[in-house]
Amino acid sequence: MKLNDNFRKMQSNYLFYTVRVKTNEYLEKHPGAEVIRLGIGDVTLPLVPAVIDAMHSAVSDMGSAATFKGYGEDFGYSFLRRAIIEQDYKPLGVDLALEEVFINDGAKSDTGNFAELFDRDNVVAVCDPVYPVYVDSNAMAGRAGDFDGERWSKLLYMPCVASNGFIPEPPKEHADIIYLCFPNNPTGAHIGYDELKAWVNYALREGSVILYDAAYCAFIEGDMPRSIYEIDGAKRCAVEFRSYSKTAGFTGVRCGFTVVPNDLVFDGQSLRTMWARRQTTKFNEASYISQRGAAAIYTPEGSKQAMESIAYYKNNAKTLREGLQALGFEVYGGVHSPYVWLATPNGMTSWEFFDALLDRAQVVGTPGSGFGPCGEGYFRLTSFGTLENSLRALERIKANF
Amino acid sequence: MKLNDNFRKMQSNYLFYTVRVKTNEYLEKHPGAEVIRLGIGDVTLPLVPAVIDAMHSAVSDMGSAATFKGYGEDFGYSFLRRAIIEQDYKPLGVDLALEEVFINDGAKSDTGNFAELFDRDNVVAVCDPVYPVYVDSNAMAGRAGDFDGERWSKLLYMPCVASNGFIPEPPKEHADIIYLCFPNNPTGAHIGYDELKAWVNYALREGSVILYDAAYCAFIEGDMPRSIYEIDGAKRCAVEFRSYSKTAGFTGVRCGFTVVPNDLVFDGQSLRTMWARRQTTKFNEASYISQRGAAAIYTPEGSKQAMESIAYYKNNAKTLREGLQALGFEVYGGVHSPYVWLATPNGMTSWEFFDALLDRAQVVGTPGSGFGPCGEGYFRLTSFGTLENSLRALERIKANF
Repeated sequence: MKLNDNFRKMQSNYLFYTVRVKTNEYLEKHPGAEVIRLGIGDVTLPLVPAVIDAMHSAVSDMGSAATFKGYGEDFGYSFLRRAIIEQDYKPLGVDLALEEVFINDGAKSDTGNFAELFDRDNVVAVCDPVYPVYVDSNAMAGRAGDFDGERWSKLLYMPCVASNGFIPEPPKEHADIIYLCFPNNPTGAHIGYDELKAWVNYALREGSVILYDAAYCAFIEGDMPRSIYEIDGAKRCAVEFRSYSKTAGFTGVRCGFTVVPNDLVFDGQSLRTMWARRQTTKFNEASYISQRGAAAIYTPEGSKQAMESIAYYKNNAKTLREGLQALGFEVYGGVHSPYVWLATPNGMTSWEFFDALLDRAQVVGTPGSGFGPCGEGYFRLTSFGTLENSLRALERIKANF
Repeated sequence: MKLNDNFRKMQSNYLFYTVRVKTNEYLEKHPGAEVIRLGIGDVTLPLVPAVIDAMHSAVSDMGSAATFKGYGEDFGYSFLRRAIIEQDYKPLGVDLALEEVFINDGAKSDTGNFAELFDRDNVVAVCDPVYPVYVDSNAMAGRAGDFDGERWSKLLYMPCVASNGFIPEPPKEHADIIYLCFPNNPTGAHIGYDELKAWVNYALREGSVILYDAAYCAFIEGDMPRSIYEIDGAKRCAVEFRSYSKTAGFTGVRCGFTVVPNDLVFDGQSLRTMWARRQTTKFNEASYISQRGAAAIYTPEGSKQAMESIAYYKNNAKTLREGLQALGFEVYGGVHSPYVWLATPNGMTSWEFFDALLDRAQVVGTPGSGFGPCGEGYFRLTSFGTLENSLRALERIKANF
């Protein structure tokens, strides 16, 4: 029996798993240490009352024969898909049909699985630094080539650095599959209309597909694109992934969605039809309870409450960003995003700063180099903690760096 | 951009999706028809009170900062994994370590995804007839070869027919990856200790891996194996998939688990480590609420209540089996399984009987040929309806066939 040898080429652990293991090791050595976790992008505010009420009601539905729900509708309940179409997209001037929206158990699964629709022999372009799921899932599928400890031989890396404002331009080379994440994880940068239009035009010209991860779109401020479909032609080249994890604190509830437009046709083949086949074969919907919870975010109260939570996290981001700037750090992100991206001080590597920050300040962040070679010398902090902990983290950093 | 052309080789729709579409078409033509659905293996009894209480409590946890849960423990909450180890496996004489149990969102995802750990170039053996997910997921990965309208060129089909009691013997040929599902979907047959031992011995001798789907193990009666790990040596060759969908009516709740033993090592590589890497990269746990619901099945009340639901479905199965036998049908299954497997009458093909049954009796079942060539001339009915509907279905069949 032959194994998928691509797994052997990979670093043994997923980045955030390593961060968690290192944190736990520290806690074992220092029992009782009050560690502030600003590493993994996990939320801390409880779910809002409208969502809680809806999920209680959904649980009750499951307890009575008349309202019990077994297998759901294919691709997710239409009550949720209609709310998405009406409230997430119509206000942006984007019309979607019901069958173009696929409910899932969170954006990680779909961003990880979507490339199953593509041949192994394609050029994959990723931002550098980048959310590791895009790279790792393609590496597992043999699409990334070999790893030299820093870069995969077949991936096209698009440097996102201070000099380009962490927004990559379309490459000179041809790329088949392009992963874009805006607002960006990890840098917190967000792309403007013109830059996004350049990407759509590139994809249409090159016959590429853009896998657009908009998991953090709830954090966008002002006149910036919320969806790639605001750009003309994007329905012919782009898939969009969204999640309730960050919009409404659903990291433990598990619900999100993917948009695969009917116009997305390659070589005479509809990607929507392929994805429908993939999902009916290998997935069985998000929990009914989670879907009811997600739908509550679209009610007037639910929407207002969810926006209050986002505002709380955005204030944390502002606090961290301005606090670190005041301490002399070089800081990016944190405006359209829950992520603050800072240059490590004194020429430390990302992992050196991780260790120093944990050891001296008992603050956990995520080393930039874990997101790719251009992340070296950077560090990610999240605003998903409490305001109190964000302020305490700043105090400890001030005292120790 | 090159597509995964394996998708083009497949029949356009997943079997149960086709059944649903055909049923909906019938309902559009015959508005108000009282269709009895015994096709898709979906449950109808509400969730038991212990599960409902646990899920209400879990929802409440999510509404308060002190008890809120974001991302869960890697691979699932230990409260659930420990219950599985203590109550599902220890009583069978099977010891498992915590890290060997992976909680998921239902067996379909993991049975569909697990073969990602294996090279494309492996011989895959499947029962015929078979749960379509095993075949379709391997076809998508290019492991099945080409489809001639009936069979995939590279799959090793193991006929499960009346003459072998629907239990396949290990083949003469070498197989690398073997899918076994017992109690079987769709035939309802269950394997005995000796036959299962023969499979474990075959796999150990041939260096094969067995992917053992025990989703229906709650229906097993008497002295029969509940887990493949009851067989000596199975930890060195087998992965086991289980689900709460049928054990506790979780088809809409989404929770199950997969066991990947530490002893499962191929070519010096631990499959458990590989699966851990796959899951941390491309999956983010089942909902906390679903996991709390699943854990409630292991409480004394929850266990008793869940067993009562199983007893209800088993009585339906007995009713269908004996009722169809009394009508002169050739019937199998329905003892250790919720599925009744019958030979179609008067030499009808499976799809002819599907259409006739829907048209004359307004009863939906699943055509045996949809599960593989050896399923032709057979038909699957499920016992997951109500007793009333099971009896009404029998009356209608009596009146029309």
